[in-house]
Amino acid sequence: MSQLFGAIEAGGTKFVCAVGTGPGDIRAESRFPTTTPAETMAQAVAFLQAQAQIHGPLSAIGISTFGPIDPHPHSATYGHITTTPKLSWQHAPVVAMVQEHFHVPVGFDTDVNGAALGEQRWGAAQGLDTFVYLTVGTGIGGGGMANGKMMHGLMHPEMGHMYVPHDWERDPFPGVCPFHGDCLEGLANGPALEARWQQPGETFPPEHEAWLLEAHYLAAGLVNIITVVSPQRIILGGGVMESRHLFPLIHREIRHQLKGYIQMPEMDAGIAEYIVPPTLGNQAGVLGSIALAQNALAQSS
Amino acid sequence: MSQLFGAIEAGGTKFVCAVGTGPGDIRAESRFPTTTPAETMAQAVAFLQAQAQIHGPLSAIGISTFGPIDPHPHSATYGHITTTPKLSWQHAPVVAMVQEHFHVPVGFDTDVNGAALGEQRWGAAQGLDTFVYLTVGTGIGGGGMANGKMMHGLMHPEMGHMYVPHDWERDPFPGVCPFHGDCLEGLANGPALEARWQQPGETFPPEHEAWLLEAHYLAAGLVNIITVVSPQRIILGGGVMESRHLFPLIHREIRHQLKGYIQMPEMDAGIAEYIVPPTLGNQAGVLGSIALAQNALAQSS
Repeated sequence: MSQLFGAIEAGGTKFVCAVGTGPGDIRAESRFPTTTPAETMAQAVAFLQAQAQIHGPLSAIGISTFGPIDPHPHSATYGHITTTPKLSWQHAPVVAMVQEHFHVPVGFDTDVNGAALGEQRWGAAQGLDTFVYLTVGTGIGGGGMANGKMMHGLMHPEMGHMYVPHDWERDPFPGVCPFHGDCLEGLANGPALEARWQQPGETFPPEHEAWLLEAHYLAAGLVNIITVVSPQRIILGGGVMESRHLFPLIHREIRHQLKGYIQMPEMDAGIAEYIVPPTLGNQAGVLGSIALAQNALAQSS
Repeated sequence: MSQLFGAIEAGGTKFVCAVGTGPGDIRAESRFPTTTPAETMAQAVAFLQAQAQIHGPLSAIGISTFGPIDPHPHSATYGHITTTPKLSWQHAPVVAMVQEHFHVPVGFDTDVNGAALGEQRWGAAQGLDTFVYLTVGTGIGGGGMANGKMMHGLMHPEMGHMYVPHDWERDPFPGVCPFHGDCLEGLANGPALEARWQQPGETFPPEHEAWLLEAHYLAAGLVNIITVVSPQRIILGGGVMESRHLFPLIHREIRHQLKGYIQMPEMDAGIAEYIVPPTLGNQAGVLGSIALAQNALAQSS
């Protein structure tokens, strides 16, 4: 099909916009800093308009964004970023700001749900209907699909803010979450990794205690995700997970912490195919937004 | 409609069987101890056959059972209880054992998913598509619905075995889970409540530290469920939750632990309508099984 889609990946520090149809066919891409909603959204719209002049009309647009957001189409505040600590973006009606200029279906979801959808369409979650995508970077965020639809529920998951046991004896570091201190995000995000050891994560050798502790906490979070959701697979992305030697440490820790309770091959010999890296790499955000656009188009027809 | 359904609630210590159509119309009920699969399932089948003679043919049968189970219709071991510590029930093909005698659709799910479905049809979860039912008794089990279908995924949730922070200073009790020690179930199930204080739970006055600690741990588990699944409501059932004064303690603890992070009325003034007791009471198991039977009939036509 020759339908073309617009993608807006709205991050807290930068926006990435693109037009294309999927992996291997991103026709144009643009990155610019996140400033005010009016300015930044105008830049996004201008980019998409210019690209539509060159490549032809867009059939739909997808927005994947930092949150929290209101993803419920029947809600009065649908399409808004809601109570974000980025004050100027509080209650920004980003979907409406796009629909003013484009009379096409607009898909809208969290950044991590967008990335999850991209992986389900083209990457590591193909064929699955219940899986989790956890991103471990500056923050820790989780999303995914349950029974074939994106995870939303009351709002959307905020998996980084679950509580896991804090091993105070081994790790007196109090955690960095401004709300909760030592929730999963507070103990295991990128800034915690650096603040605890007072040096950048990349500088630790692979066998450093920093990684063992990181794997320990992430595994505890994953055990909780496994016991609560029972996903068919878990994708671990984000900057911290680019240290790929974390994966085998996490695999070992999960088996250790589950202690044989869930007798499935995925929790044992098959765990390396169960907890996996994403396959879309640094295009995950843009491709996720294109997948959201495609879903919006499909649902509108 | 005059369709009649058979219900089998398979518990680890007793079976409850019934025929009926829903709340207020249970035509007959029978309880007997759980012995071997052959003996116990034969009793269940004999009861349903006898009732069908009296009340007319059954349109479908629902089985809600202790687990773990294989709930996936396309799996080779669908309809089995799988790796249960009750050895004689390991790999018992309970659905097939019913279908030998009744040529009608058979619904099959965990006890807690059955109870959740019953609450969605007739009780505290009506109109919801994403909610959790957590039962706190001899064990802690969780289930519910995600995007309008029962939570299954890889297998089914095992929410009791998530990890929550263990407050060793306030609570040196090591926990009772034979697998994990101080997972949520190990810290907060009925046996833990009694073993920690060495007296039966019913004997504590409502302001006893035992209840504060119980609410603290259950709230930590619920915060994890909220952040991972974002349910529209959580139903708390099971023997421990019959101490209804636990509810306001849990409400307070959840607000305390979330620390305002999720800015939704459900996490604040509306929390008493968000974390609620079940409404089907001691018929939850039987009614859940009837609801499973109704779903099986609907899906077969």
